Amino acid sequence: MAENDSLNEFLTVAIDVAKKAGEVIRKGFYETKHVEHKGSVDLVTETDKACEDLIFNHLKQHFPSHKFIGEETTAAHGESQLTDEPTWIVDPIDGTTNFVHGFPFVCVSIGLTIKKVPVVGVVYNPIMNELFTAVEGNGAFLNGNPIKVSSQSELVTCLLNAEAVPKVDKATLDATTNRINSLLYKVRSIRMGGSCVLGLCGVACGRIDLFYLVGFGGPWDVAAAAVIVKEAGGVIFDPSGNDFDITAQRVAASNPLVKDAFVEALQQSA
Amino acid sequence: MAENDSLNEFLTVAIDVAKKAGEVIRKGFYETKHVEHKGSVDLVTETDKACEDLIFNHLKQHFPSHKFIGEETTAAHGESQLTDEPTWIVDPIDGTTNFVHGFPFVCVSIGLTIKKVPVVGVVYNPIMNELFTAVEGNGAFLNGNPIKVSSQSELVTCLLNAEAVPKVDKATLDATTNRINSLLYKVRSIRMGGSCVLGLCGVACGRIDLFYLVGFGGPWDVAAAAVIVKEAGGVIFDPSGNDFDITAQRVAASNPLVKDAFVEALQQSA
Repeated sequence: MAENDSLNEFLTVAIDVAKKAGEVIRKGFYETKHVEHKGSVDLVTETDKACEDLIFNHLKQHFPSHKFIGEETTAAHGESQLTDEPTWIVDPIDGTTNFVHGFPFVCVSIGLTIKKVPVVGVVYNPIMNELFTAVEGNGAFLNGNPIKVSSQSELVTCLLNAEAVPKVDKATLDATTNRINSLLYKVRSIRMGGSCVLGLCGVACGRIDLFYLVGFGGPWDVAAAAVIVKEAGGVIFDPSGNDFDITAQRVAASNPLVKDAFVEALQQSA
Repeated sequence: MAENDSLNEFLTVAIDVAKKAGEVIRKGFYETKHVEHKGSVDLVTETDKACEDLIFNHLKQHFPSHKFIGEETTAAHGESQLTDEPTWIVDPIDGTTNFVHGFPFVCVSIGLTIKKVPVVGVVYNPIMNELFTAVEGNGAFLNGNPIKVSSQSELVTCLLNAEAVPKVDKATLDATTNRINSLLYKVRSIRMGGSCVLGLCGVACGRIDLFYLVGFGGPWDVAAAAVIVKEAGGVIFDPSGNDFDITAQRVAASNPLVKDAFVEALQQSA
């Protein structure tokens, strides 16, 4: 089997299980309204675990020789080492706070790396019924339609997605809001959606022009979206301007035209 | 005709025309992807004007004795005075930056005041197909299903919707980000959706626990959503804790349980 055929087979299987997990997420999403708060936090944990099990079992059945890294299993069993082997990197629910509150930016994220490079990406938001997909070299798609990054070439017309990660120390929070203050002088406006994965997919489909996030959970927040951004014609990089490192918990993305200005603005705001 | 029958007739007519305007907005929303940036700004202006004309013509046909206040006409002809007469207050597109960028938080907002009190509210997001409706005394609905505000009683578990209004002077922007910094120590997390109307409707349906905005455009940003929030069991007030004034360009909303703590936090952050 040629490599591209393999990648397309991987994509098909990943889409199948993303939709199955999406059903579980959608059911839980509408149930959180009917449980007390503590109950809804338990519900997200249960749904997270159930989806990760569902996804890993399905993928292992099809690809028993592949490796697996997931947010839930990694949290339970310590850091999994990313190797050159084909490795599925899964976030069963990205946007768990949104899930608990019923805010519609929630998704399942399934990425595959080969030689540590993301080559297949599937992101499914079951609340808005949006399926983002990409395979290395074949372009990126939203519900089967080709997508591409925006064509904004100046910061002043750009929509920025930033996030303020909750429950951090004062120094980190001050740095976060100072950076946002500095960037706000330069861009058109700012959005905070509460999902790293969907923020990156927003860049891929041109809804968002600029995205950055520092200090997120792990490679499961970026593995799938990285290939979707690249295949949509975008660039993904470290907020310093250095090369993107999937294990570094630091990411930025934009279209190629505005990247240098964005990196400069990020440096000036750091 | 009894007053409640009148209000329900007003609601029916407003829903009809909100859906018609929604079609125009949806068409423009997907076209912005295919035009250059300057073109997309022209497109939003054209769509805004076309929708306001459509809505006012429809309402005037049904209710020739009523008064009308709209963002577009007011911008063109100066401030319209709000009187005790039945007055339709319309924002043909709330979230125009979202409209231009293809970010899905975009809506039409149609409110009716009698004796300056909002009594009918219709908000329609045609991209996500969400229709929020309320008539004074009859509850609030999302796509026909009853909605209510969240039951969070402590700030620490609350999701806050704030906005950073673009293109302001340094003092205003600094005040905005300082306030956000202060609030971020107290709440669970923050979202910025870029639509005042949909932020308020988010409070009404419990997706968002806390909302505030100072310095928005006019009563068209709050008239419809105010009755939706109230009929969903929420409270709408001035960020100072004083009574809500529909003409003041200052608004806050939450459930009743967390209001006092929210006002205190807003005062401490001012």
